[in-house]
Amino acid sequence: MTKVGIVGGTGYTGAELLRLLAHHQGAQVKVLTSRQESGRRADHLFPQLRGHVDAVFESPDIERLAQCDAVFFATPHGTCMQMAPQLIDRGVRIVDLSADFRLKDRDVFQRWYKQPHTAFDLLQESVYGLPEWERFSVANARLVASPGCYPTAVQLALMPLLEMDLIQLDGIIADAKSGVSGAGREARVGSLYCEATDSFKAYSVSGHRHQPEIEQQLALYAEKPVGLTFVPHLVPMSRGIHATVYVRPKDPDYDFQKLFEQRYKGEPFIDILPAGEHPETRSVRGSNVCRIALHRAPDRKTLIVLSVIDNLVKGASGQALQCFNLMFDFPETQGLEAPPLAP
Amino acid sequence: MTKVGIVGGTGYTGAELLRLLAHHQGAQVKVLTSRQESGRRADHLFPQLRGHVDAVFESPDIERLAQCDAVFFATPHGTCMQMAPQLIDRGVRIVDLSADFRLKDRDVFQRWYKQPHTAFDLLQESVYGLPEWERFSVANARLVASPGCYPTAVQLALMPLLEMDLIQLDGIIADAKSGVSGAGREARVGSLYCEATDSFKAYSVSGHRHQPEIEQQLALYAEKPVGLTFVPHLVPMSRGIHATVYVRPKDPDYDFQKLFEQRYKGEPFIDILPAGEHPETRSVRGSNVCRIALHRAPDRKTLIVLSVIDNLVKGASGQALQCFNLMFDFPETQGLEAPPLAP
Amino acid sequence: MTKVGIVGGTGYTGAELLRLLAHHQGAQVKVLTSRQESGRRADHLFPQLRGHVDAVFESPDIERLAQCDAVFFATPHGTCMQMAPQLIDRGVRIVDLSADFRLKDRDVFQRWYKQPHTAFDLLQESVYGLPEWERFSVANARLVASPGCYPTAVQLALMPLLEMDLIQLDGIIADAKSGVSGAGREARVGSLYCEATDSFKAYSVSGHRHQPEIEQQLALYAEKPVGLTFVPHLVPMSRGIHATVYVRPKDPDYDFQKLFEQRYKGEPFIDILPAGEHPETRSVRGSNVCRIALHRAPDRKTLIVLSVIDNLVKGASGQALQCFNLMFDFPETQGLEAPPLAP
Amino acid sequence: MTKVGIVGGTGYTGAELLRLLAHHQGAQVKVLTSRQESGRRADHLFPQLRGHVDAVFESPDIERLAQCDAVFFATPHGTCMQMAPQLIDRGVRIVDLSADFRLKDRDVFQRWYKQPHTAFDLLQESVYGLPEWERFSVANARLVASPGCYPTAVQLALMPLLEMDLIQLDGIIADAKSGVSGAGREARVGSLYCEATDSFKAYSVSGHRHQPEIEQQLALYAEKPVGLTFVPHLVPMSRGIHATVYVRPKDPDYDFQKLFEQRYKGEPFIDILPAGEHPETRSVRGSNVCRIALHRAPDRKTLIVLSVIDNLVKGASGQALQCFNLMFDFPETQGLEAPPLAP
Repeated sequence: MTKVGIVGGTGYTGAELLRLLAHHQGAQVKVLTSRQESGRRADHLFPQLRGHVDAVFESPDIERLAQCDAVFFATPHGTCMQMAPQLIDRGVRIVDLSADFRLKDRDVFQRWYKQPHTAFDLLQESVYGLPEWERFSVANARLVASPGCYPTAVQLALMPLLEMDLIQLDGIIADAKSGVSGAGREARVGSLYCEATDSFKAYSVSGHRHQPEIEQQLALYAEKPVGLTFVPHLVPMSRGIHATVYVRPKDPDYDFQKLFEQRYKGEPFIDILPAGEHPETRSVRGSNVCRIALHRAPDRKTLIVLSVIDNLVKGASGQALQCFNLMFDFPETQGLEAPPLAP
Repeated sequence: MTKVGIVGGTGYTGAELLRLLAHHQGAQVKVLTSRQESGRRADHLFPQLRGHVDAVFESPDIERLAQCDAVFFATPHGTCMQMAPQLIDRGVRIVDLSADFRLKDRDVFQRWYKQPHTAFDLLQESVYGLPEWERFSVANARLVASPGCYPTAVQLALMPLLEMDLIQLDGIIADAKSGVSGAGREARVGSLYCEATDSFKAYSVSGHRHQPEIEQQLALYAEKPVGLTFVPHLVPMSRGIHATVYVRPKDPDYDFQKLFEQRYKGEPFIDILPAGEHPETRSVRGSNVCRIALHRAPDRKTLIVLSVIDNLVKGASGQALQCFNLMFDFPETQGLEAPPLAP
Repeated sequence: MTKVGIVGGTGYTGAELLRLLAHHQGAQVKVLTSRQESGRRADHLFPQLRGHVDAVFESPDIERLAQCDAVFFATPHGTCMQMAPQLIDRGVRIVDLSADFRLKDRDVFQRWYKQPHTAFDLLQESVYGLPEWERFSVANARLVASPGCYPTAVQLALMPLLEMDLIQLDGIIADAKSGVSGAGREARVGSLYCEATDSFKAYSVSGHRHQPEIEQQLALYAEKPVGLTFVPHLVPMSRGIHATVYVRPKDPDYDFQKLFEQRYKGEPFIDILPAGEHPETRSVRGSNVCRIALHRAPDRKTLIVLSVIDNLVKGASGQALQCFNLMFDFPETQGLEAPPLAP
Repeated sequence: MTKVGIVGGTGYTGAELLRLLAHHQGAQVKVLTSRQESGRRADHLFPQLRGHVDAVFESPDIERLAQCDAVFFATPHGTCMQMAPQLIDRGVRIVDLSADFRLKDRDVFQRWYKQPHTAFDLLQESVYGLPEWERFSVANARLVASPGCYPTAVQLALMPLLEMDLIQLDGIIADAKSGVSGAGREARVGSLYCEATDSFKAYSVSGHRHQPEIEQQLALYAEKPVGLTFVPHLVPMSRGIHATVYVRPKDPDYDFQKLFEQRYKGEPFIDILPAGEHPETRSVRGSNVCRIALHRAPDRKTLIVLSVIDNLVKGASGQALQCFNLMFDFPETQGLEAPPLAP
């Protein structure tokens, strides 16, 4: 069995890793850390895992973690960059769910995350963990930066268009909507039930941390800078991201449906819906699938790409596990086979 | 007291009219119709109105309705155009909450609503009931076509820009989100609790009935056709519409905040938020207010207008009552003074 | 205008007082306190109140508060008992929404609230603010202890039975369910959207602070101790309490429907539903009404009383305002006339 | 592979069977029927199953169903009793999720379900499919009547007490709460999102069809009639049942925690929580587990048993599959291993 550690197991992505790993046939959680909950059983914090998870929280300790083959970081930004160098020196491979290794440009990182980057060498080496577009690099990586939730939904919707140079690169609009679990399990007034339920709003319209991440990746595949307007919104639901992406095709008559079907053919976690359908976030709840649909505006000048994921799975822990499977030569779908749960 | 009739009082907009009129100091509901519920007390169907509303449903009858000074139609499309001519002949003034008199072009109406228009003369005479932009015409109208919910939110966000010719007229994008009450109180699988809760989706992306209505009105104020992409989405909440509107300003440095504050100064139901804020739909729940905020994308090439209303109030019954107040010389805010309800 | 102060205006009950007082025709909020938000406009914290409320938070200060005729305490337990003596000395009348003056037995208070009671004289003098049962005392009180939310719903369901000695006094069961706003606006993990939504649970089954309050009041009207089992539950909704109360009638054939209708006849805020109906919490959302229905179990040995209120209105701020109206000779319904909001 | 048929696959229990059987290692869905959706792919109706289920709806046909080893009925009441005799004659074994074979007394059936029972012989033979209490009979049955959702939650909470004769048999109170999926996927106004969200109510207080079913089963284990008051409530959530059961123990000092732990020891789907905890419905969402907790009222005269299940899994399709596994000699947990999904 491959020995796995999870640093920071008390948030929603940590709990989701525990859920997904519970029945993984080749991996076992050996170390689970939390400074605050040290000594407490994980299933005491997360009763839904009773009978599935035996792990007990312990304080983070490099020696203990170094006994693992792989360590997931489900921590706030800043933690992984501190511990990663020591672990990698000892041969541990890392999947980081935080933003520490997503932005290749150190200055951009510092501007958006308000802290210096202390592991620049590793930053250069790290691999962006979007398997559909970086499968080979992920498989061979020592350090994978698992993408943000919004960036995953938006990139999967845009990449085939950029790769083939089919759209105008300025004026791309990504109007994205997320469930509340995207805000994490921290006690904050804005995330209270009574503040978030039965309401809808945009936030961070003047600038969100996922904007530079998306721009970096789009530019990589477009091979030149792109002009993106990204507006996130908060939806009164637990899980799910819905990205509505507006682009202007160079050739309005191009068969985009066919393009997407072919580009993603054989991908276990990408589902291109039949023409005319609309994906709903609940159709991916609890699963690692991204469902995509393509529509044209009545004037045919605008192409609309709809993309849905579960932000805690394909947008975080599921995608991290998908990367882990590639890194350790497991079937890519191991632990990720269960159908979505609806209603 | 001004005598009021409501045709079609069993849906959400009918019930909302009853709620708002319950404490209107100059109007009284004299006739309330429903073929299906004839003989039943309104507060039996809507127990929240017990103690506030005494009305009893009766079958629709022209003689009875002709005794009213004003009649609201809260019916499916097609009903008002049949009854309006007779009522107007008898001196009754009408506020129609259905789509029968919103589209001035008969062919466009027939294409989108799949039925011929049978009251073409009245269609020409009817006034589009958006008081902030048609106050004088509304006050003098015999027949007011109360705007659709999406069109209200989108127009209030765009009109000041079009009136002053400040934006590119093509490539306008209105990404709009609505609560489930927008689908009405009919028993349909898609509107079931278990189908709509904890999920988010776009719908009618290839074309929605509110698109021609919005286009007609924008063109009127722009004085030329506009290119609009309109995508509606369904939010797991009861009430509320949030429109996120993307436009490209001609002059990126124009002070749009000031423009909106000045244009809507003194409007009792328009609230321009301070720069940097984001409106949430619950901040207008149950009230006739539209709150608007202006943001720029980081690249400053795109202006983002956020606009929220309660779809059942400013998007339907409240706006209809606002028109009624103007028509019958009541203070415009009569019956619409109560603060929104949150949480 | 009667001058009003609100101490602790940043929670849900404080915001609700502001909403209800916004259009009260005889009262005006002169002082609004919050240590933490001092200097900030109330409508910045609660944007739904924009255009309705001008108040600005200030630090609590006895001199300032002493300029008011009445002061509401919407604070955590322990604050009112410290400030009340000084204010009452200066002729200010007080309505306390916290638990400081609800329990007449000082030892019981200390056992459940884990702090000594420091204003014992006032405790003796204070009046329990359930107007339907203490109208005269409330009207003449200097200090009113506004009841807890659960106790309000349970007492209104049980009092007519106890007053007339119609049921067995042991084995009363009150199975009560509350919306999440009952937990307040503090940032706590258990109140997060993702923790409370789409789930249902009991809590504090072994003992809840409202149990001694209910027992004290029931005993008062039964004129002897009663045996009560009280179990609170958390419902994924913002507002509302539903109490399902099970009692064993002495005479199974007694006409309880008639009893309740007669006892509460003329009460502006009590609505006895027709036989056979079931009240729903949304039918009182935003209003001060308590709706009650009576049912018999199939074996006719058990009487089931269903009682719903809005926990923030009749269960807190609305009832406090009702008391205030009585104390200052306003019509009892002043500021509380608006119909409930549904859906 | 064991060949499986599902009659009536368009409701929530049908969809749930498809989800659970999708990865069952020994069973395969060969026939899936729906008169209305005949010819349509199941994953077109339930997009969450895309990639997991290939089945296509067909009209129900005895010949086709007779090719299966087992047939599940996920139909309205009345269908199974018509088709079961023919299928059983041909050697097909049946698990009926409807109420057709739950009530052993034909008259009771007819009184509550308003139709005559047309398969009385089979009714006598049928086995009540609560595996924890009828494991051996289920394993050998030709026809299993899968229990109702409320009855499952209530029985699992009460059976150990009745079996050991530890409580008073009269005055048992089961205050039960269900998510909206319990009302099925039919288009009804009462099940609309806007009718059910943000509200709570009791229903059918004067008598619910699950009452005679629970009484029949309790009497069976108590070996004499029991006096039960059963009140169902509707919770604004999709899935989940929470039963709060109140009983009076004969010996207040009995160690009930130990009793339940011992009685259910080794049961794969029963989880007795540690003393003092409260189960929440989301902790079993999507899984076949029933979690139970025991509490005493402060006066120690009342024992409170809290029991939660997912109404669509342990309350319907999961329990049916558990029975199927026993009948066909699969491990009892086959297809039911996935952890619950929370948040």
